[in-house]
Amino acid sequence: MTNTVGQLINGEMMIDGSRSQDVYNPSTGAATKQVDLACAGTVEQAIAAAEAAFPTWRNTPPARRAAVMFRFKQLLEDNADKICEMIGEEHGKIAHDAMGELQRGIENVEYACGAPELLKGEHSRNVGPGIDSWSEFQPLGVVAGITPFNFPAMVPLWMYPMAIVCGNTFVLKPSERDPSSTLYIAQLLQEAGLPNGVINVVNGDKEAVDVLLTDERVKAVSFVGSTPIAEYIYSTANANGKRCQALGGAKNHAIVMPDADMDNAVNQLLGAAFGSSGERCMALSVAVAVGDEAADTLVAKLQEAMGPLKVGEFSNRDNDFGPVITRAHQQKVNGYIDSAEADGCKIVVDGRNPQVEGYEEGFFVGATLIDNVTTQMKSYQEEIFGPVLQVVRANSMEEAMQMINDHEYGNGTCIFTRDGEAARYFSDNIQVGMVGINVPLPVPVSYHSFGGWKRSLFGDLHAYGPDAVRFYTKRKTITQRWPSSGVREGVSFAFPS
Amino acid sequence: MTNTVGQLINGEMMIDGSRSQDVYNPSTGAATKQVDLACAGTVEQAIAAAEAAFPTWRNTPPARRAAVMFRFKQLLEDNADKICEMIGEEHGKIAHDAMGELQRGIENVEYACGAPELLKGEHSRNVGPGIDSWSEFQPLGVVAGITPFNFPAMVPLWMYPMAIVCGNTFVLKPSERDPSSTLYIAQLLQEAGLPNGVINVVNGDKEAVDVLLTDERVKAVSFVGSTPIAEYIYSTANANGKRCQALGGAKNHAIVMPDADMDNAVNQLLGAAFGSSGERCMALSVAVAVGDEAADTLVAKLQEAMGPLKVGEFSNRDNDFGPVITRAHQQKVNGYIDSAEADGCKIVVDGRNPQVEGYEEGFFVGATLIDNVTTQMKSYQEEIFGPVLQVVRANSMEEAMQMINDHEYGNGTCIFTRDGEAARYFSDNIQVGMVGINVPLPVPVSYHSFGGWKRSLFGDLHAYGPDAVRFYTKRKTITQRWPSSGVREGVSFAFPS
Amino acid sequence: MTNTVGQLINGEMMIDGSRSQDVYNPSTGAATKQVDLACAGTVEQAIAAAEAAFPTWRNTPPARRAAVMFRFKQLLEDNADKICEMIGEEHGKIAHDAMGELQRGIENVEYACGAPELLKGEHSRNVGPGIDSWSEFQPLGVVAGITPFNFPAMVPLWMYPMAIVCGNTFVLKPSERDPSSTLYIAQLLQEAGLPNGVINVVNGDKEAVDVLLTDERVKAVSFVGSTPIAEYIYSTANANGKRCQALGGAKNHAIVMPDADMDNAVNQLLGAAFGSSGERCMALSVAVAVGDEAADTLVAKLQEAMGPLKVGEFSNRDNDFGPVITRAHQQKVNGYIDSAEADGCKIVVDGRNPQVEGYEEGFFVGATLIDNVTTQMKSYQEEIFGPVLQVVRANSMEEAMQMINDHEYGNGTCIFTRDGEAARYFSDNIQVGMVGINVPLPVPVSYHSFGGWKRSLFGDLHAYGPDAVRFYTKRKTITQRWPSSGVREGVSFAFPS
Amino acid sequence: MTNTVGQLINGEMMIDGSRSQDVYNPSTGAATKQVDLACAGTVEQAIAAAEAAFPTWRNTPPARRAAVMFRFKQLLEDNADKICEMIGEEHGKIAHDAMGELQRGIENVEYACGAPELLKGEHSRNVGPGIDSWSEFQPLGVVAGITPFNFPAMVPLWMYPMAIVCGNTFVLKPSERDPSSTLYIAQLLQEAGLPNGVINVVNGDKEAVDVLLTDERVKAVSFVGSTPIAEYIYSTANANGKRCQALGGAKNHAIVMPDADMDNAVNQLLGAAFGSSGERCMALSVAVAVGDEAADTLVAKLQEAMGPLKVGEFSNRDNDFGPVITRAHQQKVNGYIDSAEADGCKIVVDGRNPQVEGYEEGFFVGATLIDNVTTQMKSYQEEIFGPVLQVVRANSMEEAMQMINDHEYGNGTCIFTRDGEAARYFSDNIQVGMVGINVPLPVPVSYHSFGGWKRSLFGDLHAYGPDAVRFYTKRKTITQRWPSSGVREGVSFAFPS
Repeated sequence: MTNTVGQLINGEMMIDGSRSQDVYNPSTGAATKQVDLACAGTVEQAIAAAEAAFPTWRNTPPARRAAVMFRFKQLLEDNADKICEMIGEEHGKIAHDAMGELQRGIENVEYACGAPELLKGEHSRNVGPGIDSWSEFQPLGVVAGITPFNFPAMVPLWMYPMAIVCGNTFVLKPSERDPSSTLYIAQLLQEAGLPNGVINVVNGDKEAVDVLLTDERVKAVSFVGSTPIAEYIYSTANANGKRCQALGGAKNHAIVMPDADMDNAVNQLLGAAFGSSGERCMALSVAVAVGDEAADTLVAKLQEAMGPLKVGEFSNRDNDFGPVITRAHQQKVNGYIDSAEADGCKIVVDGRNPQVEGYEEGFFVGATLIDNVTTQMKSYQEEIFGPVLQVVRANSMEEAMQMINDHEYGNGTCIFTRDGEAARYFSDNIQVGMVGINVPLPVPVSYHSFGGWKRSLFGDLHAYGPDAVRFYTKRKTITQRWPSSGVREGVSFAFPS
Repeated sequence: MTNTVGQLINGEMMIDGSRSQDVYNPSTGAATKQVDLACAGTVEQAIAAAEAAFPTWRNTPPARRAAVMFRFKQLLEDNADKICEMIGEEHGKIAHDAMGELQRGIENVEYACGAPELLKGEHSRNVGPGIDSWSEFQPLGVVAGITPFNFPAMVPLWMYPMAIVCGNTFVLKPSERDPSSTLYIAQLLQEAGLPNGVINVVNGDKEAVDVLLTDERVKAVSFVGSTPIAEYIYSTANANGKRCQALGGAKNHAIVMPDADMDNAVNQLLGAAFGSSGERCMALSVAVAVGDEAADTLVAKLQEAMGPLKVGEFSNRDNDFGPVITRAHQQKVNGYIDSAEADGCKIVVDGRNPQVEGYEEGFFVGATLIDNVTTQMKSYQEEIFGPVLQVVRANSMEEAMQMINDHEYGNGTCIFTRDGEAARYFSDNIQVGMVGINVPLPVPVSYHSFGGWKRSLFGDLHAYGPDAVRFYTKRKTITQRWPSSGVREGVSFAFPS
Repeated sequence: MTNTVGQLINGEMMIDGSRSQDVYNPSTGAATKQVDLACAGTVEQAIAAAEAAFPTWRNTPPARRAAVMFRFKQLLEDNADKICEMIGEEHGKIAHDAMGELQRGIENVEYACGAPELLKGEHSRNVGPGIDSWSEFQPLGVVAGITPFNFPAMVPLWMYPMAIVCGNTFVLKPSERDPSSTLYIAQLLQEAGLPNGVINVVNGDKEAVDVLLTDERVKAVSFVGSTPIAEYIYSTANANGKRCQALGGAKNHAIVMPDADMDNAVNQLLGAAFGSSGERCMALSVAVAVGDEAADTLVAKLQEAMGPLKVGEFSNRDNDFGPVITRAHQQKVNGYIDSAEADGCKIVVDGRNPQVEGYEEGFFVGATLIDNVTTQMKSYQEEIFGPVLQVVRANSMEEAMQMINDHEYGNGTCIFTRDGEAARYFSDNIQVGMVGINVPLPVPVSYHSFGGWKRSLFGDLHAYGPDAVRFYTKRKTITQRWPSSGVREGVSFAFPS
Repeated sequence: MTNTVGQLINGEMMIDGSRSQDVYNPSTGAATKQVDLACAGTVEQAIAAAEAAFPTWRNTPPARRAAVMFRFKQLLEDNADKICEMIGEEHGKIAHDAMGELQRGIENVEYACGAPELLKGEHSRNVGPGIDSWSEFQPLGVVAGITPFNFPAMVPLWMYPMAIVCGNTFVLKPSERDPSSTLYIAQLLQEAGLPNGVINVVNGDKEAVDVLLTDERVKAVSFVGSTPIAEYIYSTANANGKRCQALGGAKNHAIVMPDADMDNAVNQLLGAAFGSSGERCMALSVAVAVGDEAADTLVAKLQEAMGPLKVGEFSNRDNDFGPVITRAHQQKVNGYIDSAEADGCKIVVDGRNPQVEGYEEGFFVGATLIDNVTTQMKSYQEEIFGPVLQVVRANSMEEAMQMINDHEYGNGTCIFTRDGEAARYFSDNIQVGMVGINVPLPVPVSYHSFGGWKRSLFGDLHAYGPDAVRFYTKRKTITQRWPSSGVREGVSFAFPS
């Protein structure tokens, strides 16, 4: 346990040394290394480095900034296996799942490669006689990102490639649970030719976060995590004069209509509910079956399909999914299953305390299916963030939609149907930011933007994609007139019209 | 004084009756009518009306919503003289100036007529094999606007035409100083065919504002006013889960370069500094002359040009500008001139206590020119909001730009020069949101967006123009796949890539 | 018959006087007025007027050009009844149908009101260090339009509002069959405040057309008509150095799937096939039923629904549709029915020689339904342009789509189904420019663009909507650097990179 | 001379064998290899391969098509030196110049990497009640490119990366003068993972070109070359139902204003006039000096600066530029100098018959400066395409601009000045498609588009950049309604409004 994950500041690795914390391998339950926790001074040093790097980086043409992203993409692809190994070891997700995560992250880097196009402003000749006006999108300065454990590669890549290619400099505070892949990826960006100080990574906890939220040199904060923390981040950053977007929790429902292709729906639900142990903000955790016939069929087919599912250690590619992140989280997930059971639900498939041979201390929860859930139950109202799929029964599509609209969260949702009218009505009226039609994990591609509604996102603009350009820049509008050398104009006291 | 300005709720005029306040004619100093002050219950009634009107209005095709705006524009033009008279009587601005304000407001209505184009979403065929994705911009629900006294027609028209044409319903809380034109304009919108409840106007004070900031049915707030209030509005609205943009104060500088066309610059500065008595957030209140020669020439020419300027009552079109809004504000402006004098400035032209025959009780301040101002002075650091132009002397363009960048506010600014390089360097590097090149009041046209930087605007998105579309809508991204009826797909536990 | 429809040149009405031609009332079959036919010299005069008006109009700010369109819209609405009467008298279409046409035309004027937004160019700061670049869309100069008889109000309004608001000046050569409404509408535009010479209307025939196609002062030509003429216009205009878009004929198919809501499909088909006597390039003239069961049901329901349909004179609003445009065309349409009959089709409903009491000399053809049509028949391969609906039977959706893809024309098409997969597959793969899903006349709204594929359109860009901005402007790209006064740069012989 | 450059068809290299032609090294004047000339049948084979590859490639998601471009960029960078050597050997340009060309070409590949963003269509919810509409940009099918000798790497890269990434398949007919680098680059694209048949290269002459212009399977043609050929290509392609853009010749003027930074202007002009021996369609071949004082200074400084310029063989990096392409072209360029001399011009620096030791048979022309040129001279009116800079004297900026506007060509132009007003007036009013302000070679960056005006370009849309997306796709507009299962709608015979 001599290995300590440190800080990347101004292009150099360093160890703060004041405090540190264990990093676990959730498959074995053993602490395998330490993560250095940055004190306030270290975070301020990172901010200072970012601020010093800003003027030159801001003046670097967007096409040259994009050139770094092209190289970064290459390095990410060249080192993909190593990154996935790092993710698996600290997060527990199976290699094919880590690769999916990384690929999604790389797609954000690819989008950032288009910066010269994305940063185009709007130009108007002759807004008045001989007067031109145009709007530009200029960078903000130093921007911070605070990211969760569940996507250590992808979520940071939602943020800093776009922030940086827009001309900002960046300080990233990743999750202290699984810091290695995140740090390594930032080092690859450095290696891709980024000037020192443009990207900085500080590992740490609330002490580090609070510096980022209050230091006036930080102009904007992007956050992904749970809703209570998101709300704190958002209000604190705003109160400190910063732009902020804070993404929180979710409870994603799929409506299964009687006309749905049921086998397809079942296949889709398995991956969406249990992939990555359900530790995804887009995980599908509730299936709302319309009509008892559909519900009975769905539950029966799910139960059957869940039979062969294997939970286990990350390094075995035959496993379908891995452990949850910590022992405490394992117990919390089990607690939700207990609670549902106590509320009278039927535990159709019970994943509590699975046997994983050779990994008895791992933080495993098996795939769990719960039927007859109702909207008053705690296990329905809260985000479980584990491999637990709940089935709710509704009498009509309207009733099913009302459940979704009444829920606190509005991140993702999906409908399974063959009917064009049902799909259109659902997508138009559902109060959720990301909607799937027969697509259970409707994560927008990198050239659209990611964002939930209601208490799943605080802020005006969504993450990555076109919205990221707007979030990481501010509009400047210039109005220009070149007075004719020979002409004098009369004075006007009226407001220009 | 039997005339009382009331409330427009759900398409009907009403009087709350609990509290009221005097409305003055600033040219005479006399209270001429009363404005009814809405109590909390009345504001809630307005919100309820807006909420009830939302579902139908949201489903009305954008082109039909725009049709109301086409008619509204026509009604505004048909009733322009009446509106300008109302503005003059309560605000004090001269008719040609009121007409300029109104015209700018109408241009925002014209922009709103383009809603079908502006609301287009982004569509991607084949984000994956057989999978399509598109993003839509859906309305928020009930939106509130809180507006200042200085542009009773224009600033509300920055907000609700765009909010409404995007499918939202609206509650407006205008200034209680000059409520009549604002209310009348809203009635014209109603007359243009808007369904009841889509636009509501509540006159009131902090009691009304606080309902708008805390009622959970209100989804967004737009505000224009002073910086301390803007900051309060922004943080309160955010803490209550609302989207908010809050525009605050300004201190707009013009740099006058030695190569500037000096006569042109003087002519432009007169209107920009004294028009509407300087009660504009885009008023040019500081001229920074580069080099003493330029400064001496500028001051001499300004002094000469200011000779014929006439301050007086709103109804006389020969006057160049009218009174300030209240007796208290008149005294505050005079106090800033006193303070500059005490700080050692030269009061080149002194507008304190001007004689306006027949209007001895009016709230007049004459055009004032102050030389040798420095950046430490209170009169430099704060917004005066009166017909006072201060001259600061700088040794270089860099020094002049540093002053601007160091100031708390960053609303508008301008440079007078003939030199392309100077113009480009200035517009690129100045930390101000709206920049003029030989344009002293660089208010963006309605198809660009209005917004300052630093403490002149709280929020991510600017007012009116393209940014208003984004502010008044939320993104929804739909991903759609139609499973082939004959095909079954394998289960995937990996994150989709 | 003293009434002669003349020419609008440089803001004034004039009569050429060299040649003229009868204008008929197709409901009575009587010639009711004359149309003056412009000789070459008169057309050159119109071009000269347009060329003279160009420099000033080009320099008029887009917002002021748009202001004319706002007034034009108002005048069109104020005079709608008069315009519809003019259309009915010369074209024969019933008032409600003329109003639909006019409304669609007005929507193009509304779109043109958004010119300031639509004409925005693209601005890039720092394409290289200290180098900026932007693209503008500048007007072409004099533009011509040549339009058909079937939409005398709408099709010209597809063209000149956008052309003019983009800064061009215009010469319109409308159909000589029904010239009055077209001319009157242009006069309204003049009345709306357009400077003289910006819009000019020349009535005429091939002599006039050929001047427009060869005069080098004309920079672009828009055409709508039949395919052989479109091809001639396109190649001649191109050979004479002009930009051209030429829209031709159509044969629009609807696929009726077995799962379609059959009553809805029948209702939709009736209007789409027989409205305006089928004289629309978007008329639905072929229904392809998939499966004999669907075909039999469809034919039976159509036959029943066609019973009450009334063909008759334009002024009686109880009539469903009116006469065709000329006696010759009436005979041509009848000839196609004869030909189908001779080819062995079943004439389910026969509209040849209908009795219209009191209008025995009118050019009427009644609603006709033909079953068992096959793709080898002349009546299938050619455009009939009359109130004739043909039913083709197919065994599968693929077979039905192949028919459409094999046809010479590719203007519009439609599918009736409830199935999302069918709709998606159809819209993706069908080789047609305008596609309806349960929408039988998928004419794009004014803020999208109109255009067919294959031999239905010659040119790169579609009509009206966003494409019209590109068609009526040319891109200019400016790259700007302001050399620093103190710096000298080295010589570079390499291509800039 | 055993080396023969062949054909790339359907992923495989082949030799047609019917005819071939010498390829020269212009630095030595020796034929060094042969190029195989494709007969009609071989071109048809290439078209067939492209057509066969289209359906699958069209259905490949844009992001996966872009993935090939990412790899292609990498391969181009990895093999840059080899490519530049190939270019130098056959074209004669010096390595640093070839690298500049290649870099510009790579930038077009980078732009193509942004395809998923660039191909987004426009989506409108509720164009009518319950009706949605969207526009997509679908590929055309088989597209052809015909490219000139002067940029064997760059100009093909203007075309096929964008054509291919938009979903088309491609047949390229490059110049037979210097075919090796072009072919090698296409092989790299193949190596990057492009499916067979998507890119095909046919070397050949008019026989090959005419197949591409007439074969109905080819849907569009992009061409760059001289104006007479461009005109032939354009009219022939159009007459054969193809979309076409054809870029022709140029005569690019720089206006040198009296206030210009003269040393900077001279430095810029040297590279722009003589780089690549002036064989660029953006070469600056005419300097218009405003005022005799500016002219005299300019000529004197140019003469002095041209002293050290070295023309010579491509492989010596100390040379400033290399030979022209052929012996015939060398003689043609000399002929223009003779003609100017005969017309009474002053040959200030004479580059005819330069001595290049060891390369006596090379096709060299030295840098040439000609003063006192007037607009009637043949050497002014025609494109020289050699290292010849002509100076014309004008009395005013207006006179200088008139010369440019009167010239047949309108490709590029530039003004040297410090004055903002002059720059704005020039860029607004000059009748040229690509305008430089103190930028002598205003080639738009890859994210803007390249195109001249007047007889420098035939077609509506410019090359590469955003216009390329429009050129290589066709718009399809879909209008969709899902009828409510329970509702029946009335028949409407009116045009939908």
